[in-house]
Amino acid sequence: MTTYQRIVLASRPRGAVLPENFRIESVALSEPGAGEVVVRNHYLSLDPYMRGRMSEAKSYASAQALDETMIGGTAGEVVASNNSRFAVGDMVVGMLGWAEMGVSDGALLRKVDAGRIPLSAYLGVLGMPGMTAWYGLNQIMRPKAGETVLVSAASGAVGSAVGQLAKLHGCRAIGIAGGPEKCVYVVDELGFDACIDYKAGTLAADLAAAAPDGIDALFENVGGAGFDAALPLMNPFGRIALCGLIAGYNGADLALRNVRFLLTSRLSLQGFIVTEHLDLWPQGLGELGALVADGKLKYRETVAQGLAAAPDAFIGLLNGRNFGKQLVKLT
Amino acid sequence: MTTYQRIVLASRPRGAVLPENFRIESVALSEPGAGEVVVRNHYLSLDPYMRGRMSEAKSYASAQALDETMIGGTAGEVVASNNSRFAVGDMVVGMLGWAEMGVSDGALLRKVDAGRIPLSAYLGVLGMPGMTAWYGLNQIMRPKAGETVLVSAASGAVGSAVGQLAKLHGCRAIGIAGGPEKCVYVVDELGFDACIDYKAGTLAADLAAAAPDGIDALFENVGGAGFDAALPLMNPFGRIALCGLIAGYNGADLALRNVRFLLTSRLSLQGFIVTEHLDLWPQGLGELGALVADGKLKYRETVAQGLAAAPDAFIGLLNGRNFGKQLVKLT
Repeated sequence: MTTYQRIVLASRPRGAVLPENFRIESVALSEPGAGEVVVRNHYLSLDPYMRGRMSEAKSYASAQALDETMIGGTAGEVVASNNSRFAVGDMVVGMLGWAEMGVSDGALLRKVDAGRIPLSAYLGVLGMPGMTAWYGLNQIMRPKAGETVLVSAASGAVGSAVGQLAKLHGCRAIGIAGGPEKCVYVVDELGFDACIDYKAGTLAADLAAAAPDGIDALFENVGGAGFDAALPLMNPFGRIALCGLIAGYNGADLALRNVRFLLTSRLSLQGFIVTEHLDLWPQGLGELGALVADGKLKYRETVAQGLAAAPDAFIGLLNGRNFGKQLVKLT
Repeated sequence: MTTYQRIVLASRPRGAVLPENFRIESVALSEPGAGEVVVRNHYLSLDPYMRGRMSEAKSYASAQALDETMIGGTAGEVVASNNSRFAVGDMVVGMLGWAEMGVSDGALLRKVDAGRIPLSAYLGVLGMPGMTAWYGLNQIMRPKAGETVLVSAASGAVGSAVGQLAKLHGCRAIGIAGGPEKCVYVVDELGFDACIDYKAGTLAADLAAAAPDGIDALFENVGGAGFDAALPLMNPFGRIALCGLIAGYNGADLALRNVRFLLTSRLSLQGFIVTEHLDLWPQGLGELGALVADGKLKYRETVAQGLAAAPDAFIGLLNGRNFGKQLVKLT
């Protein structure tokens, strides 16, 4: 009998996520039934949305069940198959969760070419985070050349792609990130025009200085003080893609005080979740894949080693300790 | 020499608008030049947007100049004309401001048929307020039959039209208004399904009770506590037409705390000002006019008598003392 390790939600966090909210356990691998495949996961993706699932509060998805495998995107290799669409050795991405192995009926598995591009990229720039950036920029922000685009969490998996795509559109790209090291990376490596360190304590003034012509489009990943500081700088008819509110995931105040600029600058705002727009994924992933292959879209990864490291890596992600896409390497 | 009375902005309000922010004065009527007409105003329109113009703060329009005639919509009669488009006796609406008379080049004058519908209606349901309701509902909220629509300042010139139009679309219409008398009017006369008295002090609970199926579209005129209480009740993919923030016009806190629902319910929000969409006015005014003529769209007016009453009437409007469209009758 094959066994594998998985991590389940042991308890719901009250405020900050703690290691004891998770439990690692060994479970027996069930035999794959008709049409099913067995996948050995090489990488687990850690993403901020998981924090929302850990709570019972109303969100855009149902809550993560207690004592069940934590939800999560995975990339791995087919090791047994009763499904004609998949052969042993195929590299696949899926949603098998925080687990070393999994059985799938194949419906949510996608075969990927891990020769051309590293497997881990399909969990980041060529996966959900990349598509999130692509959708928000192209479907909501729709920036024109010469416009100014602001993105928070600019060194992260989503934000880094947003700013680089904006530059490819001919925009001025401004990022917000935590700490000088991330800001240097955002400007020098990713090619943003400016990056503001929100930890410096002068966010509003720094933002105004970095956006002398105002802000035409905002990609908001964080919420709170940065979001509020951006509103007075928005130009008339500015567009806001609201993707995340990581600042409030542990219950902190997300209040917006500069509400009147939504009216006086005739802003539009759209909250979104990219998995509700799967029809656009083939187009978006095609464009993103070409850019990565051409070296026009860079990405950075923080890789934790082994499944047992996942809870701490996830807590680090929620506190901004990661640098780029947070992964867990399982093999 | 003909003289007339006008009201100018004497000083900018610091917080609440006071009578001494205005000054009434007599001025000489200038002779109309080539292409110009002279209009005797019968009605002056008072509208919340004027409060924004009285401040120097950045808004969607330039500030009202000190010592100049207060901006405002007017309805009146042509009494002299050097313009072939207008004859003496024509009834016209325009933007001649807080004044008994005015000279216009005709560019912003619109001839109206005051036989079919009372002249004053062209400043309300068949003017800017009616178009504001029509635009927000049809271009931003786009409600489908069976959906629930919420509108604040529901007994006002804009809100009363929003709710009635929503009912004509087959929606459940909920209003928020100040005091039992207004709420009874909103339900019994205008035909809303429910109206919440924000002065009762149980706004959030009353709103939840009135919207058992949630809120699909919100027309926001007020901001502040009512807006914040509506956000958690919004259904996925809800639409918010942000038209006004009258609660904050005197500097009061407009903070929104329930920001996360913008994301988790994937809401869209659009701030707008209807005078930026003049291309749609012929269509909208045509539809509104037919509804008023058929008795399907009701309106109510509060009429102050004489130009000198305008400042007090305007202060009353900002404090919700009016009931329906606030006008000043000048003749």
